[in-house]
Formats: sequence, C-alpha cells, structure tokens
Amino acid sequence: MNTVKVSIVGSTGYVGAEVVHGFLGHPGVEFVYLTSESFKGKKFSDIYPVYRGILDKTLVSTEEVSYETIGKESDLVITALPHGVSSKVVPELIKAGCRVIDHSGDFRYKDINTYTKSYKLEHPYPELLSEAVYGLPELYREQLKTTKLTANPGCYPTCSIIPLTPFLKAGLIEKEGIIIDATSGVTGAGRKEKLEYSFCEVDESFKPYGVTGHRHNTEINEQLSFQAGDETGKSVKAAFTPHLAPFKRGMLASIYCKPAALFEQVSTEAVQEVLNKYYENEEFVRVLPKGVLPDVKCVNGSNFIDVTGVYDEDTGLIKLFSAQDNLGKGAALQAIQAFNVMFGFPEGTGLSTLTRGV
Amino acid sequence: MNTVKVSIVGSTGYVGAEVVHGFLGHPGVEFVYLTSESFKGKKFSDIYPVYRGILDKTLVSTEEVSYETIGKESDLVITALPHGVSSKVVPELIKAGCRVIDHSGDFRYKDINTYTKSYKLEHPYPELLSEAVYGLPELYREQLKTTKLTANPGCYPTCSIIPLTPFLKAGLIEKEGIIIDATSGVTGAGRKEKLEYSFCEVDESFKPYGVTGHRHNTEINEQLSFQAGDETGKSVKAAFTPHLAPFKRGMLASIYCKPAALFEQVSTEAVQEVLNKYYENEEFVRVLPKGVLPDVKCVNGSNFIDVTGVYDEDTGLIKLFSAQDNLGKGAALQAIQAFNVMFGFPEGTGLSTLTRGV
Amino acid sequence: MNTVKVSIVGSTGYVGAEVVHGFLGHPGVEFVYLTSESFKGKKFSDIYPVYRGILDKTLVSTEEVSYETIGKESDLVITALPHGVSSKVVPELIKAGCRVIDHSGDFRYKDINTYTKSYKLEHPYPELLSEAVYGLPELYREQLKTTKLTANPGCYPTCSIIPLTPFLKAGLIEKEGIIIDATSGVTGAGRKEKLEYSFCEVDESFKPYGVTGHRHNTEINEQLSFQAGDETGKSVKAAFTPHLAPFKRGMLASIYCKPAALFEQVSTEAVQEVLNKYYENEEFVRVLPKGVLPDVKCVNGSNFIDVTGVYDEDTGLIKLFSAQDNLGKGAALQAIQAFNVMFGFPEGTGLSTLTRGV
Amino acid sequence: MNTVKVSIVGSTGYVGAEVVHGFLGHPGVEFVYLTSESFKGKKFSDIYPVYRGILDKTLVSTEEVSYETIGKESDLVITALPHGVSSKVVPELIKAGCRVIDHSGDFRYKDINTYTKSYKLEHPYPELLSEAVYGLPELYREQLKTTKLTANPGCYPTCSIIPLTPFLKAGLIEKEGIIIDATSGVTGAGRKEKLEYSFCEVDESFKPYGVTGHRHNTEINEQLSFQAGDETGKSVKAAFTPHLAPFKRGMLASIYCKPAALFEQVSTEAVQEVLNKYYENEEFVRVLPKGVLPDVKCVNGSNFIDVTGVYDEDTGLIKLFSAQDNLGKGAALQAIQAFNVMFGFPEGTGLSTLTRGV
Repeated sequence: MNTVKVSIVGSTGYVGAEVVHGFLGHPGVEFVYLTSESFKGKKFSDIYPVYRGILDKTLVSTEEVSYETIGKESDLVITALPHGVSSKVVPELIKAGCRVIDHSGDFRYKDINTYTKSYKLEHPYPELLSEAVYGLPELYREQLKTTKLTANPGCYPTCSIIPLTPFLKAGLIEKEGIIIDATSGVTGAGRKEKLEYSFCEVDESFKPYGVTGHRHNTEINEQLSFQAGDETGKSVKAAFTPHLAPFKRGMLASIYCKPAALFEQVSTEAVQEVLNKYYENEEFVRVLPKGVLPDVKCVNGSNFIDVTGVYDEDTGLIKLFSAQDNLGKGAALQAIQAFNVMFGFPEGTGLSTLTRGV
Repeated sequence: MNTVKVSIVGSTGYVGAEVVHGFLGHPGVEFVYLTSESFKGKKFSDIYPVYRGILDKTLVSTEEVSYETIGKESDLVITALPHGVSSKVVPELIKAGCRVIDHSGDFRYKDINTYTKSYKLEHPYPELLSEAVYGLPELYREQLKTTKLTANPGCYPTCSIIPLTPFLKAGLIEKEGIIIDATSGVTGAGRKEKLEYSFCEVDESFKPYGVTGHRHNTEINEQLSFQAGDETGKSVKAAFTPHLAPFKRGMLASIYCKPAALFEQVSTEAVQEVLNKYYENEEFVRVLPKGVLPDVKCVNGSNFIDVTGVYDEDTGLIKLFSAQDNLGKGAALQAIQAFNVMFGFPEGTGLSTLTRGV
Repeated sequence: MNTVKVSIVGSTGYVGAEVVHGFLGHPGVEFVYLTSESFKGKKFSDIYPVYRGILDKTLVSTEEVSYETIGKESDLVITALPHGVSSKVVPELIKAGCRVIDHSGDFRYKDINTYTKSYKLEHPYPELLSEAVYGLPELYREQLKTTKLTANPGCYPTCSIIPLTPFLKAGLIEKEGIIIDATSGVTGAGRKEKLEYSFCEVDESFKPYGVTGHRHNTEINEQLSFQAGDETGKSVKAAFTPHLAPFKRGMLASIYCKPAALFEQVSTEAVQEVLNKYYENEEFVRVLPKGVLPDVKCVNGSNFIDVTGVYDEDTGLIKLFSAQDNLGKGAALQAIQAFNVMFGFPEGTGLSTLTRGV
Repeated sequence: MNTVKVSIVGSTGYVGAEVVHGFLGHPGVEFVYLTSESFKGKKFSDIYPVYRGILDKTLVSTEEVSYETIGKESDLVITALPHGVSSKVVPELIKAGCRVIDHSGDFRYKDINTYTKSYKLEHPYPELLSEAVYGLPELYREQLKTTKLTANPGCYPTCSIIPLTPFLKAGLIEKEGIIIDATSGVTGAGRKEKLEYSFCEVDESFKPYGVTGHRHNTEINEQLSFQAGDETGKSVKAAFTPHLAPFKRGMLASIYCKPAALFEQVSTEAVQEVLNKYYENEEFVRVLPKGVLPDVKCVNGSNFIDVTGVYDEDTGLIKLFSAQDNLGKGAALQAIQAFNVMFGFPEGTGLSTLTRGV
C-alpha cells in the first residue's frame, strides 16, 4: 500500500484533532506538517495530552513553513480553517501542486451569490466553486476520485441530505414544506474561549440558536435542490433550526416532509424500504430496523450515520431521523472517507471499526 | 391567611417531591399526609436527603391510611399516580369531600374516546371528565376557582399550548400542518430503576422516542382545537415528536406553523406582538425580547415558561419557541399555581421568586 | 422587621449572583446598588435571564457611582471582588460608614506574613486584619454581631474546618498528619472565558490541580491551628489537594486524621457522637446518621453542610466527610448567614428552606 | 500472524463490551462465542447498537453452549462474571483446555483467608489461587507468558499499585500511613438497573462510598505488601476511599505517603525520577512531565495510565497521582495487554493507538 503524505492546516481545533484521530489507524498515511498558529513549537500531544506517546509531532506555524512548501511536500492538505481564510489559502495550496480537502464553507456552494449572501463575504476565487466537489461520497463518489479540491460538507447539511436524498431524487416527497429540526453537541461550536460555551453555561442547558438565516440552511437548500433535479439549486427551501445540547459530540436531525402524489401506498415500511434500497451498498449509512430510532451515542466516534423514517398516519407526514457524530460523519471522518475515495483506498480504510464503545 | 390542609398521594416520585419543594416557601399550606407505597415508614428526608431537617415527615402507605381518611382530613389532595390508577383513586378522594389536583392523563380529556384510544384503558368514571378542569390557569382561570377536580396538564402539552394559543384563538395561523418538535430532561421519565435511564446510557446521548402516537399528542390536539374554537376537539392535528436529552430538568418546544390569511403583514415583530399582548398580564409566561431565545436553564426550578417567536421569510413559516421546567410549569409548580387559584391565594404565592439561580 | 439596605459590588459573578438568589426570599433586605464593571447599564436579568421579571435592577459601574456613595447609602456592602482589589476597596467602603462582608482572601488571615506569602501581595491596610472577623458563624458568632468587617471564608476552608474543629478543640485528634482531599464543582472557578473551563474540556473529565501551595491551604492551617488552641496559627499543617469535577455546584471533602491518645475507645459511634454533640444546636451543620454519607447533590442550593465520620479499624485512622454547595455554605449563603447574625435576624432567615430539590 | 480463538463469557456488561471494543482492531483474534444469559439469541449489536454492521454476532447462553464446549473450542476465554460465579466457572473452562483471563476478584489473592474475609465467600477451588497470575504486565510479565489463568486486577488496585510500586520496591517510602483517595466514573458500577445509578441520581452528584472495608482495599494491601518485599502480603495497610463522580469512564487516584529515611534529598524532581526510571520501558505507563497533572479525559478509551508525583515541602509528604480508564487499563484493555503477553503478540498490538480523542 502506498503512503500518502498528508498535512493538516489548523490541526489543533476539534476538527483538526479528529482528523488526526481518524488517521491514527489508517495504514496509508504519513503526516508531513501539522500546523497551528496559536501553539507553534509545542507538540500536538501537549495540546491533546491523550496523544502523548502516540503523536508527539511538533506543530509548525505557516509563518515558519509557507503554504507553498506545505503544498509542495504534501500529496494532500486538509484545511480546518475559518471561512474567509480558506478561500485564500486553498488556492495557494492547490497551486503548489497538492490536492485539498477543505472544511470551511468557502467551496461548498455552486452559486456564488448564495455564498456571498450566506457568508457576507466576497470570494477571491469564485472560479474554483465549479471545480470543487462536495465531499459526500454517497452522492459524488465518481467526481471525488479525481478532484483537486473537496469541499467537505457541513455537519447539519450531511445529516439533512443523507436521509432526504432518496426521496427527493425519486420524487417521493414534496419539495415544499420540508422542516429540519436538528441538535448538535458542543464540539460543534469549536475549541473556543467563550463564556457561552463554558461548562457552567452549557451544562443542564438546552436552546435553539440561529433560528433564521443559519448558513447551513442555504447549503442544505442548494444540495437538496440538486438532488431534486433542479440544477439552479433554488427549488427546495427547507426550514432549518439548530439547537445546542449538553453533550460533547453528536448531532441528530428530525425531519418532517410530505409524501408526494408519486408515493403511492406510503407507510412506515415503504419509507424504510426507500432508505434501505438507496443505501444498501453504503458502508457508512446504516438504515435502522423498524422500531429502532437513532441515538447520537450509537454513532459517536464513528463515521456512521444512522437513519430511519416513519409515516405518521395522523398527520400524513413522513418523519425522518438521522444521527451522526458531528466531528465524525459530520466533519473529520467524512473527510477521511473522501480521502479514501480520492486516493484509491477501500472506502472504509481506517474507519470501518472506529467507534467509542460504551 | 388561612392554612390549607394538603396531602400528596405518591409523594416520592419526582413530581411529588417537586410539589413538596414548591410548597416549602408557601405560607398557606400545611401537609397532612405524604403517601408512599414503596417507602412507608421512612421519612420524606430519607428518600430526599436534601430535605433533612426541613421536611422529616413520615411517609404513610394507603394501606395504613385509607383514601377515605386522607380525603376527609385534607382540603386538597394532590395525586401523583400512574394513569389507570388515578382514575380509580381520584373519585374516592372527591367522594370523601376534598378537592383534588391530579397529575395523570386520566382526567385531561373531554372526549372519552380520545382517552380510550390514547391510553388503551377503559375509564371507570367517564362522567368525571366533563367536571374536571384542565389545569392551565392561563386558559381556565375562572373554572379553576370552583372546581373539585383539576387535571394538571402534561408537560409537553403545556409548552405547546401556551405559545400556540394566542395565534389559534385569533385565527392567525392555519390549523393544518402544525409541527411540534420537543425535548425533555430525564426527570420527565420519572424516578425509575430502568437501564434505559441509567447514567451511562443517557449521558452523552440524544434521541427521539415515541415518534408516532405519543399520548401527549392527542392531549395537545384536543386543547389546541378548543383554542381554535372547535368544541369537538378534533380539528387540529399537530405532528409531535419528543426527544430525550442529557439534562435533569427542563423542556423545550420548537414549533412550526403557517400564518393564516388573516395574519396580515406577518413579521417577527408582529409575531412577538401577538404573544406580548396575549400574555401581558400573566406572571408566569415571559415573552422574551426580540433576539433572545429560550433556554431551559433560564426557567429551571421556576414556574416560568419563556416564549418567543420569529417569522422566517425564506420559508414563510412562523417558528415559536418555549422553554419550561418539565417539573415546574410542566408539572408540580403549575399545580401549585392552580392551587393558588383554587384556594384564593394570589397566583404567585410561594412561586414568584422560586428559581435555581446559576 | 427592619429593612437593611444592601449593595453588592461585583454582582454578576457566580458568587454575586448567588448572593442575589439567597436574598430573594429574605424579608429584611432591600438592594441599593448592584455593581458590575463589565455589564454596566444592563439589567441584572439580562446577565442571568432566569431572573427576568424577578430582579430587573440596572447594574451600575463604580465609575458612575463611587465606593463612597455606595458605602454611604448602604447599611451593608457585600464585595465579590478579586483578592488584591478587595484590600483597597473594602477600607474605602468602611470609611464611608457601612459594614462589609468580603468574599476575597484579603481579610481572612490574622498573620500578615502568611497572607503575603500565600497571595504574593503587599497588603495596603494590614491593620484591618485584626479587626476583621472570619465569617464562620459556627465559630465566631459573638464577634460577628458587632463587626464592621466580615471576611467570608473560602469554600475549601469551610468544608475542612467544620468537620475537624470539634476534634481539634477537644484534643481528640493529632495535629500532625491531617490530609484533606477535596473536590469542587466548576462554578468554583468563577464565571470566566477560559478554554480550561469550557464544556468540552470539563465534561467527562476529572483532575487534581494546585496540588502544592494552594492558597486555601494556609487559610485552613491558620484556622485549624486556632481551633487547636494555638494562637500563632502555625501548629497545624494539613496536606490539602483540590480536584475539579464535572458538575456545576458542590464541594466534597474527604479528610484523614489520627485519633490522639486522649480519644479513648475510638469508634465510628464515638466519632459521630463528637460531631453530634458539637453541632447539636447548629441549624446548618447536619451530622448524618451512621451509614449515610454526604453527597453534594443533597446540599446543593442550600446553606447546609452535611458531615459524618468513621473510624477505620484496619488503619487506625478517622475519616471525616463533608459536603456543601461551594456557592452556598461555601460562599454566598454563608455570607447571608453571617449577615443575619450581624443584623440581628434569626440565623435561618431566608435560608432555612432554601434547596434545589431533585 | 496466528489467529487466537477467543470467547467472552458475559459479553454484554460494560467490561465485556470493552473487551470486544479493544479486540476490534486486533489483527490476531477471532471471536468464537460471545455469551449472555440475559440477551441470548440477540445480536451483540442489538445490545450495543454502536456496533451495528461491525459486530453482529449472535449471543449464546451457557445453557445452549456448555462451558466445556466453550473451553474446548477456544484458545482463550475471557470471563466477565460476578465474583462467586467465576470461582466455579473458571476451573471448568481450564479443565476443558483453554487459557482464561478472569475479571472477578476470585483469583486475585494469594492468601485464601484474605479472600474469604473480603468477599464473605468460601472458595471452591482455593488451590488455583497459587497458580493464578495477577494480570499486571508491568509486574508479572514473565509469569503471564505461560500461565493458564490470569486474574485481571481490579480497577482501583491498578491505579494504586502502579504509582506506588517503584517507591515500595526501593524502600523509598514508609509502608505505614499510605492513603489512597480515588474516584471512579459510573461505568465502574456496571450495567445495572439501579435507581442509585440512574441519570437523575448521579448527574450533578459526587459522593464517597464503601469508606471502610472495600474489597479492593485488601487486594491493594496484598499486592503492595508483595512489592514491598513482604511475601505474607500483610505489611502494608493503606487507607482507601472510593468516590463516585458524574462521568462515564475514568478513574483517578490521589495518593499520600511518607518518604522513608532511605529517600535522601527527596524533591518533586527526585520523585519523578523514580517513576521515570522504573517505567521508562513501559508502553502504557506514561510518567507526565513536571507540572502536568493527570486527567481522566486524557486516558479515556485507551490502555494508558498517566502518573506523576510531587513532594509537598510544607507537610513532608509525597503525593502521587494516577489516571486511567476504569474500563481500559482498569479492566478490559489491561486484559488485552495481558493477552498479548500470554500469546506472544507485541504488547501494544491493537492497543497502541486506541484513544477517544476529544
């Protein structure tokens, strides 16, 4: 097995650290640079002492080692940077010759106007949007194989798109009136010194946030529209509401939608059949048996997303549910899944048995 | 101030204990009997050591002291019993001459068929359904003043009905397509020896449950229909989904509904105005200022319910949010609020400053 | 009942907020000023939304309202300031004519050298050390009645001194070799924007900190020495180790000591008898019955400290255990207990039934 | 690499499940039987849905498949059974020809009287005590290579013995007066339907338990005595106190001891030097650098035990600290480490990179 030279830019945030974690058991990866502006000169295991003796590599800043050098010496660079920063750094890296998996929102949209409106930023390299591949292997596997630039999906979009896609693609649900009510663990907010995310403020707390205009809403809409066959990316307008709950990892989406006329004889069994059929060959999408509902604790630490659906006779609605680790399938481990596709490894390499057990 | 003689049947569950807690600072209450079948002979403070030196009253079983005796010696009995048990015990108590606030689902419905279908039980005293008053003081204050029997609302119904009522009553939202996505703390499951609710199973977990046919759904539907002016209780069919989250106390509802034609010039400000106007004289319904969202930690330990609403221009939906303590406004403290109405105390007696601080 | 005019300087930290909480049910208090430098102009309930509608008083900064004014218009000022700041502010307040309860370490010592060594600070008013009364009502009740300045004890000292005092005073344990192993909830670290106290860093974590030279150690030593009859405050040198655990409130001390020759026929019963006898008239020290061990959840939200002790035959050691709310008996509620003594209220006023229930 | 046939008896408790978890990444293991009396016929992944698609093996009861069969068809059987049960089952398994790693207390003692006194049980096969090897590879590596029966150490003993051994062996601390104050996560109590371990009882709680006569105390004493050179196992009598804290996994020990006369020039550096030297070749004992203290979150999910020590000049005591995952180095992963020794795998096989990341 060949060894791929990988660097991580922004390696000490929670996403960066989970990329490291995910790659630890991967037989085909060698780390070149782990960068950190805040902790340069320290060892990775100084920041995450859990890795003492496992990964004691020294962190470098991009002032010491330029993006050009990083890009030249790496086959792949994984960027875990804020939006607005990625849009400048990623093109430099690609120019230096490496491939890139980016975690920001900067390359996830096809429509530059939607990006601009959502992020309130001018994009310095809008031409890259069409080249970037949205990093959901279940939807864009072929394109990922050869792309230079993978835009790793947002966490909320992943757990919204996976359950809805089979229905939208087959025209089995209406594009109007989709509601996505989702809840994230606190790592979703990043590794930050903010009172809002301090233990005493979050523990025994539960609240919605960003209840209108959340950036992930437009990302969800564009992708769902594509799946519904609308290349303009405009036809689906889901109502999306995120919540913050007192657990570290995990994300759950509860989704409400209306069966379309095409969906004859809708029933819970029929809903599950749609999911089962669509995902029968996917290793990381687990369609749960009837009567079993997703729970974030059953996917945490893994790249799995657990999904199921029911038909609610009383209201005539379909309810879909999905659970994933927001840092796993929702971020870093999905990036490794995409990496495996991009570099020709079996898709589950390093990921198949990754879990957190009890 | 007169002293009301109060007994609590089933005093050692979480609801019973919270009734005790709520009454501790109430100047007009004297406890007569605290019953417990499991812990008879022990002191209340043996079961809840936090009350050592505060409430060391001995627990009695209803084998030692009959319901007749309890009913005769008490002005009010609060029953915190399972459904199917309350339906038999409450009539006995009333016959003995006391008034009753019941916490089960047995007297919350007006339509006996809805009860039977929801609880899969024959009701031994269906004639009492029409006499019972649904214990939401905000909606049934006048009736509570004189009733013999108050059916304390369910926790999910309370946090659903309070935000929706002003809109349904004024015809400002459509009765069709209401979606209620709600999350409860673990005390909602009661004080039980079940693996499912053990620390190691709940901590770092989040999941939906009872996603179709939950009993509170029919209770919500009947009351919302009443508020919408439909006396049959059938016209509103909300889609309801409860979730369990890793905190002890608190409940949050995120509600989605469509503005009706009557709601001209709908906007976030207009939505808030509706709430503000309707609840301006209510002590325990706090309509939050624009931009502030409810959080369970801000109502825990209190009888407050915090509500707000936004208009989502992108989807044309109104989103309403409410947070309450599931044991507070969602159960025991709401019962005390009803008690104050029933016995002529100012409605905030013992409740106005009750909180949990940090 | 007279109304005492109270101001709180530094009212928006966790201690300040708990003082507010504790005074809410107190019939003899009127708030004059609540100060906050960070949040001046906002309402107290903006910072702690749980108090919306309960305490909406506007916060003032001490630039707007001088310490002199605060001191003149208040009967009592409670200062919740960092050490090194209190030492300057408190004398100003006293000079303006009010009495003060201070929460810092600046007035807790009698020996100025111990203070200087522990806090690495020069004290601007060392002469006040002898006037200040250490605010443990169980030990200094008489002195508190008339003092101008109460130095509210540290949280770790309170839960160390209360269980050890009866034994040291009677010469029943050796002064040598006392070991205090204690654990605090996260509110003990204050309301701070520090990564170290963020949810994702604290949740599922447990660790010791400050394992040598912790400031509370010298405070403990001085007071224990006094109780042992040594006015130099030097003879007891306990080994003290604090730990941080993932809960918000509460503190537990596990204490190891050796019976002295004077303690004839030492046994668990005898150990408990000593505690029972010493504290039989104390409302807020609860000596638990044999076989019951303290738990922070049983004291949280209250001013109680639960204590017990056992004799371990296998090792010949006495083990003492105490639990308190670090913000309650460990800080703000103990200050209110001292307040009651200082101003002639029954000692339990506002505190007797204060708990957090489930 | 050879494949070892492994069965797990009692595979659905937390220890059994962690053994499964630990073996998932081990290249040299094949599962033969996973037994469960409560869940026979179900799949392992029905009980732990996190393993759906990873380990769907059907659970068998030992009524269906006899211990003889299990023992015959397996090279190794790992038993995760209650004490008193293991003592009967393990001899049967060994007789059938397999090797055994047992997790109960039944084979951990050399002195049968200590066992009998500690567990209040007659041992049916006391002759096996001398054959069994105490499963701490750091102390008994040679003996483990050939033993038929490994008695996996208790969790509290592991984190007590590892830090103390280097000092006791070298005579650097006194055998008298050792104090071990330790705290466990809730998985330590097992997977049980007990109110005591329900979320609402444990969350926001912290308490000592078993404060005299805990079984692990005698196990600790015997092993520490051996390390101190006393073959009777009687000379060390540590005072041990366990606590329960609201986290799932992890265990921390804070240990107090006195330098012996032999320990010249005791200092924090000297204390660390002793630890560093003793464990320099051990993969799973990480001696932390000066100033870094152990935290359970930094070892969770791994087989590491992090240790350090300080000399407290004020009291003349040495304080040692250790943290491990109670299910990891404290139980299941230590068993796999022993397994590697027993079957000739490199000691870190399957374990070296096992962590839980963030």
